[in-house]
Amino acid sequence: MIQITIIGSGNVAQHLIKAFSASKIIEIKQVFSRKKEALHHLIEFEKIIDDYNHLQTADLHIIAVSDNAISEVSEQLPFNNQLVVHTSGTSSIELLNEKNRRGVFYPLQTFSKTKEVDFSIIPFCLEAENTADFKLLETVAKSISTAVYSISSEQRKALHVAAVFVNNFTNHLYHLGQEICEENQLPFAILRPLIQETADKINTLDPVDAQTGPAKRHDSNTTEAHLAFLQDENKKNIYKILTQSIQHNGKKL
Amino acid sequence: MIQITIIGSGNVAQHLIKAFSASKIIEIKQVFSRKKEALHHLIEFEKIIDDYNHLQTADLHIIAVSDNAISEVSEQLPFNNQLVVHTSGTSSIELLNEKNRRGVFYPLQTFSKTKEVDFSIIPFCLEAENTADFKLLETVAKSISTAVYSISSEQRKALHVAAVFVNNFTNHLYHLGQEICEENQLPFAILRPLIQETADKINTLDPVDAQTGPAKRHDSNTTEAHLAFLQDENKKNIYKILTQSIQHNGKKL
Repeated sequence: MIQITIIGSGNVAQHLIKAFSASKIIEIKQVFSRKKEALHHLIEFEKIIDDYNHLQTADLHIIAVSDNAISEVSEQLPFNNQLVVHTSGTSSIELLNEKNRRGVFYPLQTFSKTKEVDFSIIPFCLEAENTADFKLLETVAKSISTAVYSISSEQRKALHVAAVFVNNFTNHLYHLGQEICEENQLPFAILRPLIQETADKINTLDPVDAQTGPAKRHDSNTTEAHLAFLQDENKKNIYKILTQSIQHNGKKL
Repeated sequence: MIQITIIGSGNVAQHLIKAFSASKIIEIKQVFSRKKEALHHLIEFEKIIDDYNHLQTADLHIIAVSDNAISEVSEQLPFNNQLVVHTSGTSSIELLNEKNRRGVFYPLQTFSKTKEVDFSIIPFCLEAENTADFKLLETVAKSISTAVYSISSEQRKALHVAAVFVNNFTNHLYHLGQEICEENQLPFAILRPLIQETADKINTLDPVDAQTGPAKRHDSNTTEAHLAFLQDENKKNIYKILTQSIQHNGKKL
Protein backbone atom coordinates (compact mmCIF):
# COMPACT_ATOMS: atom_id res chain seq x y z
CA MET A 1 0.00 0.00 0.00
CA ILE A 2 1.13 3.55 -0.77
CA GLN A 3 0.79 5.66 2.37
CA ILE A 4 -0.48 9.20 1.86
CA THR A 5 -0.87 12.08 4.30
CA ILE A 6 -3.11 15.02 3.41
CA ILE A 7 -2.67 18.48 4.89
CA GLY A 8 -5.86 20.54 4.56
CA SER A 9 -9.61 20.22 5.00
CA GLY A 10 -11.13 22.26 2.15
CA ASN A 11 -12.92 21.12 -1.02
CA VAL A 12 -9.90 19.60 -2.73
CA ALA A 13 -8.71 17.82 0.45
CA GLN A 14 -12.15 16.36 1.08
CA HIS A 15 -12.61 15.15 -2.50
CA LEU A 16 -9.12 13.56 -2.42
CA ILE A 17 -9.87 11.79 0.88
CA LYS A 18 -13.02 10.31 -0.66
CA ALA A 19 -11.24 9.23 -3.85
CA PHE A 20 -8.23 7.71 -2.03
CA SER A 21 -10.50 5.87 0.41
CA ALA A 22 -11.94 4.00 -2.57
CA SER A 23 -8.53 3.13 -4.05
CA LYS A 24 -7.18 -0.38 -3.41
CA ILE A 25 -3.51 0.61 -3.46
CA ILE A 26 -3.66 3.66 -1.19
CA GLU A 27 -3.82 3.99 2.56
CA ILE A 28 -4.50 7.41 4.05
CA LYS A 29 -2.07 7.61 6.96
CA GLN A 30 -2.99 10.97 8.49
CA VAL A 31 -4.97 14.09 7.70
CA PHE A 32 -3.96 17.44 9.20
CA SER A 33 -6.83 19.82 9.89
CA ARG A 34 -7.22 22.76 12.29
CA LYS A 35 -10.89 21.78 12.55
CA LYS A 36 -11.04 18.06 13.27
CA GLU A 37 -14.86 17.95 13.12
CA ALA A 38 -14.83 19.13 9.47
CA LEU A 39 -13.48 15.73 8.43
CA HIS A 40 -14.75 13.11 10.83
CA HIS A 41 -17.54 12.05 8.43
CA LEU A 42 -14.83 11.15 5.92
CA ILE A 43 -12.12 9.40 7.91
CA GLU A 44 -11.43 7.66 11.24
CA PHE A 45 -11.12 10.31 13.93
CA GLU A 46 -7.77 9.01 15.25
CA LYS A 47 -6.16 9.67 11.84
CA ILE A 48 -7.00 13.39 12.03
CA ILE A 49 -4.36 15.54 13.71
CA ASP A 50 -4.21 19.26 14.42
CA ASP A 51 -0.60 19.63 15.55
CA TYR A 52 2.29 19.60 13.06
CA ASN A 53 4.49 17.83 15.62
CA HIS A 54 2.24 14.78 15.39
CA LEU A 55 2.84 14.42 11.65
CA GLN A 56 4.59 11.16 10.74
CA THR A 57 6.28 10.55 7.40
CA ALA A 58 4.44 8.76 4.60
CA ASP A 59 5.26 7.90 0.97
CA LEU A 60 3.54 11.09 -0.17
CA HIS A 61 2.43 14.28 1.62
CA ILE A 62 -0.21 16.31 -0.19
CA ILE A 63 -0.63 19.97 0.81
CA ALA A 64 -4.20 20.90 -0.23
CA VAL A 65 -4.52 24.41 1.19
CA SER A 66 -5.13 27.85 -0.35
CA ASP A 67 -2.33 29.21 -2.56
CA ASN A 68 -1.11 31.83 -0.10
CA ALA A 69 -0.69 29.24 2.70
CA ILE A 70 1.36 26.68 0.73
CA SER A 71 4.74 28.23 1.44
CA GLU A 72 4.25 28.50 5.20
CA VAL A 73 2.67 25.05 5.57
CA SER A 74 5.52 23.41 3.64
CA GLU A 75 8.01 25.14 5.95
CA GLN A 76 6.26 23.88 9.08
CA LEU A 77 6.46 20.21 8.14
CA PRO A 78 8.58 18.48 10.83
CA PHE A 79 10.64 16.31 8.47
CA ASN A 80 13.20 16.53 5.64
CA ASN A 81 13.87 14.86 2.31
CA GLN A 82 10.33 13.47 2.01
CA LEU A 83 8.03 13.77 -1.03
CA VAL A 84 5.79 16.83 -0.59
CA VAL A 85 3.41 18.13 -3.27
CA HIS A 86 0.81 20.87 -3.57
CA THR A 87 -2.48 20.74 -5.52
CA SER A 88 -2.52 24.26 -6.95
CA GLY A 89 -3.05 25.30 -10.55
CA THR A 90 -1.33 28.65 -10.12
CA SER A 91 1.60 28.05 -7.81
CA SER A 92 5.05 27.05 -8.96
CA ILE A 93 6.71 23.91 -7.60
CA GLU A 94 9.30 26.36 -6.18
CA LEU A 95 6.81 27.63 -3.63
CA LEU A 96 7.35 24.46 -1.62
CA ASN A 97 10.14 24.57 0.97
CA GLU A 98 13.25 22.92 -0.44
CA LYS A 99 14.02 20.90 2.65
CA ASN A 100 11.78 18.20 1.11
CA ARG A 101 11.57 16.56 -2.36
CA ARG A 102 8.97 18.58 -4.23
CA GLY A 103 6.16 17.93 -6.69
CA VAL A 104 2.74 19.03 -7.92
CA PHE A 105 -0.47 16.98 -7.93
CA TYR A 106 -3.04 19.28 -9.55
CA PRO A 107 -6.55 18.00 -10.31
CA LEU A 108 -7.93 20.26 -13.06
CA GLN A 109 -11.54 20.52 -11.96
CA THR A 110 -13.97 22.87 -10.29
CA PHE A 111 -14.98 21.50 -6.90
CA SER A 112 -17.96 22.46 -4.84
CA LYS A 113 -18.98 21.02 -1.51
CA THR A 114 -22.53 20.34 -2.62
CA LYS A 115 -21.89 18.41 -5.82
CA GLU A 116 -20.30 14.98 -6.24
CA VAL A 117 -17.49 14.74 -8.78
CA ASP A 118 -16.55 11.78 -10.98
CA PHE A 119 -12.80 11.59 -10.27
CA SER A 120 -12.17 8.94 -12.92
CA ILE A 121 -12.33 11.55 -15.73
CA ILE A 122 -10.57 14.42 -13.94
CA PRO A 123 -7.24 15.34 -15.54
CA PHE A 124 -4.35 15.16 -13.07
CA CYS A 125 -1.39 17.41 -13.91
CA LEU A 126 1.79 16.05 -12.36
CA GLU A 127 5.26 17.45 -11.84
CA ALA A 128 8.21 16.22 -9.77
CA GLU A 129 11.90 16.99 -9.37
CA ASN A 130 13.04 13.43 -10.00
CA THR A 131 11.89 10.42 -11.98
CA ALA A 132 11.16 8.10 -9.07
CA ASP A 133 8.90 10.68 -7.41
CA PHE A 134 7.13 11.33 -10.70
CA LYS A 135 6.47 7.59 -11.09
CA LEU A 136 4.94 7.43 -7.63
CA LEU A 137 2.67 10.42 -8.37
CA GLU A 138 1.69 8.76 -11.64
CA THR A 139 0.79 5.50 -9.88
CA VAL A 140 -1.29 7.37 -7.28
CA ALA A 141 -3.09 9.52 -9.90
CA LYS A 142 -3.81 6.53 -12.17
CA SER A 143 -5.39 4.68 -9.26
CA ILE A 144 -8.16 7.31 -9.14
CA SER A 145 -8.25 8.82 -12.68
CA THR A 146 -7.84 7.76 -16.30
CA ALA A 147 -6.51 11.18 -17.42
CA VAL A 148 -2.98 11.73 -16.14
CA TYR A 149 -0.59 14.30 -17.67
CA SER A 150 3.00 15.43 -17.14
CA ILE A 151 2.81 19.23 -17.02
CA SER A 152 5.62 21.68 -16.23
CA SER A 153 5.09 24.64 -13.88
CA GLU A 154 5.15 26.99 -16.90
CA GLN A 155 2.54 24.91 -18.76
CA ARG A 156 0.43 24.66 -15.61
CA LYS A 157 0.32 28.44 -15.43
CA ALA A 158 -0.98 28.56 -19.03
CA LEU A 159 -3.47 25.81 -18.25
CA HIS A 160 -4.82 27.71 -15.28
CA VAL A 161 -5.36 30.83 -17.39
CA ALA A 162 -7.15 28.71 -20.01
CA ALA A 163 -9.25 27.15 -17.23
CA VAL A 164 -10.29 30.62 -16.03
CA PHE A 165 -11.58 31.35 -19.54
CA VAL A 166 -13.55 28.12 -20.00
CA ASN A 167 -14.77 27.75 -16.42
CA ASN A 168 -14.91 30.99 -14.37
CA PHE A 169 -15.67 33.30 -17.31
CA THR A 170 -18.11 30.87 -18.90
CA ASN A 171 -19.99 30.53 -15.63
CA HIS A 172 -20.18 34.31 -15.44
CA LEU A 173 -21.73 34.42 -18.92
CA TYR A 174 -24.37 31.99 -17.61
CA HIS A 175 -24.95 34.47 -14.79
CA LEU A 176 -25.39 37.39 -17.22
CA GLY A 177 -27.78 35.25 -19.29
CA GLN A 178 -29.77 34.57 -16.14
CA GLU A 179 -29.97 38.30 -15.36
CA ILE A 180 -31.29 39.05 -18.85
CA CYS A 181 -33.92 36.31 -18.42
CA GLU A 182 -35.06 37.55 -15.03
CA GLU A 183 -35.27 41.17 -16.19
CA ASN A 184 -37.70 39.96 -18.85
CA GLN A 185 -39.82 37.53 -16.78
CA LEU A 186 -38.27 34.50 -18.46
CA PRO A 187 -37.32 31.38 -16.49
CA PHE A 188 -33.56 30.66 -16.61
CA ALA A 189 -34.47 26.98 -17.05
CA ILE A 190 -35.31 27.76 -20.66
CA LEU A 191 -31.56 28.31 -21.34
CA ARG A 192 -30.31 25.13 -19.64
CA PRO A 193 -30.62 22.74 -22.62
CA LEU A 194 -28.75 25.28 -24.78
CA ILE A 195 -25.96 25.57 -22.21
CA GLN A 196 -25.71 21.78 -22.05
CA GLU A 197 -25.62 21.40 -25.83
CA THR A 198 -22.98 24.16 -26.17
CA ALA A 199 -20.69 22.18 -23.85
CA ASP A 200 -21.57 18.78 -25.38
CA LYS A 201 -20.83 20.00 -28.90
CA ILE A 202 -17.11 20.47 -28.31
CA ASN A 203 -16.73 16.79 -27.42
CA THR A 204 -17.09 16.13 -31.13
CA LEU A 205 -16.33 19.49 -32.75
CA ASP A 206 -13.49 22.00 -32.46
CA PRO A 207 -14.78 25.22 -30.85
CA VAL A 208 -14.01 27.17 -34.02
CA ASP A 209 -16.18 24.77 -36.06
CA ALA A 210 -18.94 24.85 -33.44
CA GLN A 211 -19.13 28.66 -33.52
CA THR A 212 -22.52 29.99 -34.67
CA GLY A 213 -24.48 33.20 -34.13
CA PRO A 214 -24.80 36.76 -35.42
CA ALA A 215 -21.15 37.73 -34.69
CA LYS A 216 -19.81 34.77 -36.65
CA ARG A 217 -22.23 35.50 -39.53
CA HIS A 218 -21.20 39.21 -39.46
CA ASP A 219 -24.93 39.89 -39.19
CA SER A 220 -24.66 43.53 -38.10
CA ASN A 221 -28.44 44.07 -38.18
CA THR A 222 -28.79 41.58 -35.33
CA THR A 223 -25.70 42.60 -33.34
CA GLU A 224 -26.80 46.26 -33.50
CA ALA A 225 -30.34 45.37 -32.43
CA HIS A 226 -28.88 43.40 -29.50
CA LEU A 227 -26.66 46.30 -28.44
CA ALA A 228 -29.63 48.66 -28.61
CA PHE A 229 -31.65 46.20 -26.50
CA LEU A 230 -29.00 45.96 -23.76
CA GLN A 231 -29.39 48.87 -21.35
CA ASP A 232 -26.65 47.89 -18.92
CA GLU A 233 -23.25 49.40 -19.90
CA ASN A 234 -21.32 46.41 -18.55
CA LYS A 235 -23.29 43.87 -20.64
CA LYS A 236 -23.10 46.15 -23.70
CA ASN A 237 -19.33 46.34 -23.34
CA ILE A 238 -18.93 42.57 -22.95
CA TYR A 239 -21.21 42.03 -25.96
CA LYS A 240 -19.11 44.39 -28.11
CA ILE A 241 -15.73 42.96 -27.13
CA LEU A 242 -16.70 39.30 -27.53
CA THR A 243 -18.43 40.02 -30.86
CA GLN A 244 -15.26 41.74 -32.13
CA SER A 245 -13.12 38.88 -30.84
CA ILE A 246 -15.26 36.28 -32.66
CA GLN A 247 -15.02 38.28 -35.89
CA HIS A 248 -11.29 38.84 -35.52
CA ASN A 249 -10.68 35.12 -34.90
CA GLY A 250 -12.90 34.22 -37.80
CA LYS A 251 -10.70 36.21 -40.16
CA LYS A 252 -7.47 34.77 -38.82
CA LEU A 253 -8.44 31.13 -39.43
CA MET B 1 -53.33 14.12 -38.42
CA ILE B 2 -52.06 17.70 -38.39
CA GLN B 3 -50.72 18.58 -41.82
CA ILE B 4 -47.56 20.68 -41.87
CA THR B 5 -45.66 22.26 -44.75
CA ILE B 6 -42.07 23.38 -44.25
CA ILE B 7 -40.42 26.07 -46.35
CA GLY B 8 -36.63 25.83 -46.20
CA SER B 9 -33.85 23.24 -46.35
CA GLY B 10 -31.25 24.42 -43.80
CA ASN B 11 -30.32 23.04 -40.37
CA VAL B 12 -33.56 23.98 -38.62
CA ALA B 13 -35.74 22.74 -41.50
CA GLN B 14 -33.90 19.42 -41.63
CA HIS B 15 -34.06 18.85 -37.87
CA LEU B 16 -37.80 19.66 -37.89
CA ILE B 17 -38.45 17.26 -40.76
CA LYS B 18 -36.74 14.49 -38.79
CA ALA B 19 -38.62 15.27 -35.57
CA PHE B 20 -42.03 15.57 -37.28
CA SER B 21 -41.47 12.34 -39.22
CA ALA B 22 -41.26 10.53 -35.85
CA SER B 23 -44.43 12.16 -34.47
CA LYS B 24 -47.64 10.12 -34.59
CA ILE B 25 -49.97 13.11 -34.93
CA ILE B 26 -48.15 15.00 -37.67
CA GLU B 27 -48.05 14.50 -41.41
CA ILE B 28 -45.53 16.49 -43.42
CA LYS B 29 -47.53 17.55 -46.47
CA GLN B 30 -44.88 19.36 -48.51
CA VAL B 31 -41.38 20.75 -48.18
CA PHE B 32 -40.26 23.70 -50.30
CA SER B 33 -36.59 23.73 -51.24
CA ARG B 34 -34.67 25.34 -54.08
CA LYS B 35 -32.32 22.34 -53.95
CA LYS B 36 -34.50 19.20 -53.98
CA GLU B 37 -31.50 16.86 -53.58
CA ALA B 38 -30.59 18.46 -50.21
CA LEU B 39 -33.64 16.80 -48.66
CA HIS B 40 -34.34 13.55 -50.47
CA HIS B 41 -32.59 11.50 -47.76
CA LEU B 42 -35.16 12.85 -45.27
CA ILE B 43 -38.48 12.75 -47.10
CA GLU B 44 -40.25 11.20 -50.11
CA PHE B 45 -39.06 12.99 -53.23
CA GLU B 46 -42.60 13.74 -54.50
CA LYS B 47 -43.31 15.84 -51.40
CA ILE B 48 -40.43 18.19 -52.19
CA ILE B 49 -41.36 21.15 -54.40
CA ASP B 50 -39.27 24.02 -55.74
CA ASP B 51 -41.99 26.27 -57.17
CA TYR B 52 -44.16 28.42 -54.89
CA ASN B 53 -47.14 27.89 -57.24
CA HIS B 54 -47.15 24.19 -56.31
CA LEU B 55 -47.63 24.95 -52.60
CA GLN B 56 -50.93 23.64 -51.23
CA THR B 57 -52.48 24.78 -47.99
CA ALA B 58 -51.91 22.78 -44.79
CA ASP B 59 -52.87 23.25 -41.12
CA LEU B 60 -49.54 24.92 -40.47
CA HIS B 61 -46.84 26.42 -42.71
CA ILE B 62 -43.40 26.77 -41.15
CA ILE B 63 -40.94 29.18 -42.74
CA ALA B 64 -37.47 27.96 -41.67
CA VAL B 65 -35.18 30.25 -43.65
CA SER B 66 -32.55 32.86 -42.72
CA ASP B 67 -33.85 35.98 -40.97
CA ASN B 68 -33.39 38.30 -43.92
CA ALA B 69 -35.42 36.04 -46.25
CA ILE B 70 -38.49 35.61 -43.98
CA SER B 71 -40.30 38.72 -45.16
CA GLU B 72 -39.96 37.96 -48.87
CA VAL B 73 -40.78 34.25 -48.52
CA SER B 74 -43.94 35.04 -46.52
CA GLU B 75 -45.01 37.45 -49.24
CA GLN B 76 -44.55 34.87 -51.99
CA LEU B 77 -46.86 32.27 -50.44
CA PRO B 78 -49.75 31.73 -52.91
CA PHE B 79 -52.57 31.69 -50.31
CA ASN B 80 -54.32 33.92 -47.75
CA ASN B 81 -55.69 33.60 -44.21
CA GLN B 82 -53.65 30.45 -43.44
CA LEU B 83 -51.46 29.86 -40.38
CA VAL B 84 -47.86 30.83 -41.22
CA VAL B 85 -45.02 30.89 -38.66
CA HIS B 86 -41.29 31.55 -38.70
CA THR B 87 -38.64 29.82 -36.56
CA SER B 88 -36.41 32.80 -35.77
CA GLY B 89 -35.18 33.95 -32.38
CA THR B 90 -34.54 37.52 -33.50
CA SER B 91 -37.38 38.38 -35.88
CA SER B 92 -40.67 39.86 -34.75
CA ILE B 93 -43.94 38.16 -35.65
CA GLU B 94 -44.64 41.36 -37.63
CA LEU B 95 -42.02 40.41 -40.20
CA LEU B 96 -44.47 37.89 -41.66
CA ASN B 97 -46.77 39.19 -44.39
CA GLU B 98 -50.17 40.02 -42.91
CA LYS B 99 -52.19 38.34 -45.65
CA ASN B 100 -51.92 35.18 -43.50
CA ARG B 101 -52.53 34.39 -39.78
CA ARG B 102 -49.14 34.76 -38.13
CA GLY B 103 -47.14 33.00 -35.45
CA VAL B 104 -43.69 32.03 -34.22
CA PHE B 105 -42.35 28.52 -33.65
CA TYR B 106 -38.82 29.06 -32.30
CA PRO B 107 -36.75 26.09 -31.10
CA LEU B 108 -34.11 27.52 -28.72
CA GLN B 109 -31.15 25.38 -29.63
CA THR B 110 -27.91 25.46 -31.56
CA PHE B 111 -28.11 23.17 -34.55
CA SER B 112 -25.29 21.76 -36.57
CA LYS B 113 -25.51 19.43 -39.55
CA THR B 114 -23.04 16.95 -38.10
CA LYS B 115 -24.52 16.39 -34.65
CA GLU B 116 -27.83 14.77 -33.72
CA VAL B 117 -30.06 16.72 -31.35
CA ASP B 118 -32.45 15.36 -28.72
CA PHE B 119 -35.60 17.32 -29.60
CA SER B 120 -37.53 16.11 -26.58
CA ILE B 121 -35.70 18.55 -24.27
CA ILE B 122 -35.47 21.53 -26.66
CA PRO B 123 -37.49 24.54 -25.45
CA PHE B 124 -40.05 25.69 -28.03
CA CYS B 125 -41.02 29.37 -27.79
CA LEU B 126 -44.45 29.92 -29.26
CA GLU B 127 -46.42 33.01 -30.24
CA ALA B 128 -49.63 33.44 -32.26
CA GLU B 129 -52.12 36.18 -33.03
CA ASN B 130 -55.15 34.18 -31.84
CA THR B 131 -55.91 31.48 -29.28
CA ALA B 132 -56.89 28.71 -31.69
CA ASP B 133 -53.65 29.11 -33.62
CA PHE B 134 -51.64 29.14 -30.39
CA LYS B 135 -53.35 25.88 -29.31
CA LEU B 136 -52.40 24.24 -32.59
CA LEU B 137 -48.76 25.34 -32.25
CA GLU B 138 -48.78 24.04 -28.68
CA THR B 139 -50.11 20.62 -29.78
CA VAL B 140 -47.47 20.39 -32.51
CA ALA B 141 -44.61 21.46 -30.21
CA LYS B 142 -45.71 19.11 -27.42
CA SER B 143 -45.71 16.19 -29.84
CA ILE B 144 -41.93 16.56 -30.24
CA SER B 145 -40.76 18.33 -27.02
CA THR B 146 -41.52 18.40 -23.30
CA ALA B 147 -40.46 22.07 -22.90
CA VAL B 148 -43.02 24.38 -24.50
CA TYR B 149 -43.30 28.08 -23.60
CA SER B 150 -45.52 31.02 -24.53
CA ILE B 151 -43.10 33.86 -25.32
CA SER B 152 -43.93 37.31 -26.69
CA SER B 153 -41.86 38.90 -29.48
CA GLU B 154 -40.33 41.30 -26.93
CA GLN B 155 -39.38 38.43 -24.58
CA ARG B 156 -38.04 36.42 -27.49
CA LYS B 157 -35.68 39.28 -28.32
CA ALA B 158 -34.36 39.22 -24.73
CA LEU B 159 -34.07 35.45 -24.86
CA HIS B 160 -32.04 35.60 -28.04
CA VAL B 161 -29.61 38.08 -26.49
CA ALA B 162 -29.29 35.82 -23.42
CA ALA B 163 -28.72 32.86 -25.75
CA VAL B 164 -25.88 34.73 -27.48
CA PHE B 165 -24.19 35.15 -24.08
CA VAL B 166 -24.55 31.53 -22.94
CA ASN B 167 -24.00 29.88 -26.31
CA ASN B 168 -22.07 31.96 -28.89
CA PHE B 169 -19.90 33.83 -26.37
CA THR B 170 -19.33 30.75 -24.22
CA ASN B 171 -18.21 28.77 -27.26
CA HIS B 172 -15.81 31.58 -28.12
CA LEU B 173 -14.30 31.35 -24.62
CA TYR B 174 -13.73 27.64 -25.34
CA HIS B 175 -11.96 28.74 -28.50
CA LEU B 176 -9.72 31.19 -26.61
CA GLY B 177 -8.96 28.44 -24.06
CA GLN B 178 -7.97 26.16 -26.92
CA GLU B 179 -5.62 28.82 -28.34
CA ILE B 180 -3.90 29.23 -24.95
CA CYS B 181 -3.48 25.44 -24.75
CA GLU B 182 -2.03 25.13 -28.23
CA GLU B 183 0.40 28.03 -27.72
CA ASN B 184 1.76 26.09 -24.74
CA GLN B 185 1.88 22.57 -26.24
CA LEU B 186 -1.07 21.42 -24.13
CA PRO B 187 -3.82 19.20 -25.57
CA PHE B 188 -7.24 20.92 -25.54
CA ALA B 189 -8.70 17.57 -24.40
CA ILE B 190 -7.34 18.33 -20.94
CA LEU B 191 -9.96 21.11 -20.58
CA ARG B 192 -12.97 19.08 -21.76
CA PRO B 193 -13.97 17.56 -18.37
CA LEU B 194 -13.82 21.04 -16.81
CA ILE B 195 -16.02 22.48 -19.56
CA GLN B 196 -18.51 19.65 -19.07
CA GLU B 197 -18.58 20.07 -15.29
CA THR B 198 -19.03 23.86 -15.61
CA ALA B 199 -22.16 23.28 -17.68
CA ASP B 200 -23.41 20.38 -15.51
CA LYS B 201 -23.07 22.40 -12.32
CA ILE B 202 -25.78 24.89 -13.20
CA ASN B 203 -28.35 22.09 -13.43
CA THR B 204 -28.23 22.00 -9.63
CA LEU B 205 -26.72 25.38 -8.70
CA ASP B 206 -27.52 28.98 -9.61
CA PRO B 207 -24.65 30.44 -11.69
CA VAL B 208 -23.91 32.99 -8.95
CA ASP B 209 -23.48 30.17 -6.41
CA ALA B 210 -21.40 28.11 -8.83
CA GLN B 211 -18.96 30.99 -9.42
CA THR B 212 -15.39 30.20 -8.33
CA GLY B 213 -11.93 31.43 -9.31
CA PRO B 214 -9.47 34.25 -8.66
CA ALA B 215 -11.84 37.05 -9.76
CA LYS B 216 -14.57 35.91 -7.39
CA ARG B 217 -12.03 35.55 -4.53
CA HIS B 218 -10.64 39.04 -5.31
CA ASP B 219 -7.27 37.29 -5.49
CA SER B 220 -5.36 40.10 -7.22
CA ASN B 221 -2.01 38.27 -7.03
CA THR B 222 -3.40 35.61 -9.36
CA THR B 223 -5.38 37.90 -11.67
CA GLU B 224 -2.30 40.14 -12.11
CA ALA B 225 -0.07 37.14 -12.79
CA HIS B 226 -2.59 35.95 -15.41
CA LEU B 227 -2.68 39.35 -17.09
CA ALA B 228 1.11 39.45 -17.16
CA PHE B 229 1.12 35.96 -18.69
CA LEU B 230 -1.30 36.86 -21.49
CA GLN B 231 0.62 38.48 -24.36
CA ASP B 232 -2.30 38.93 -26.72
CA GLU B 233 -4.05 42.32 -26.25
CA ASN B 234 -7.47 40.89 -27.14
CA LYS B 235 -7.30 38.11 -24.52
CA LYS B 236 -5.89 40.54 -21.94
CA ASN B 237 -8.81 42.89 -22.55
CA ILE B 238 -11.42 40.12 -22.29
CA TYR B 239 -9.74 38.85 -19.10
CA LYS B 240 -9.89 42.33 -17.53
CA ILE B 241 -13.49 43.06 -18.44
CA LEU B 242 -14.89 39.70 -17.33
CA THR B 243 -12.88 39.82 -14.09
CA GLN B 244 -14.31 43.28 -13.33
CA SER B 245 -17.80 42.11 -14.23
CA ILE B 246 -17.55 39.12 -11.84
CA GLN B 247 -16.35 41.39 -9.04
CA HIS B 248 -18.99 44.01 -9.74
CA ASN B 249 -21.76 41.38 -9.72
CA GLY B 250 -20.33 39.83 -6.60
CA LYS B 251 -20.73 43.14 -4.77
CA LYS B 252 -24.25 43.73 -5.95
CA LEU B 253 -25.60 40.44 -4.59
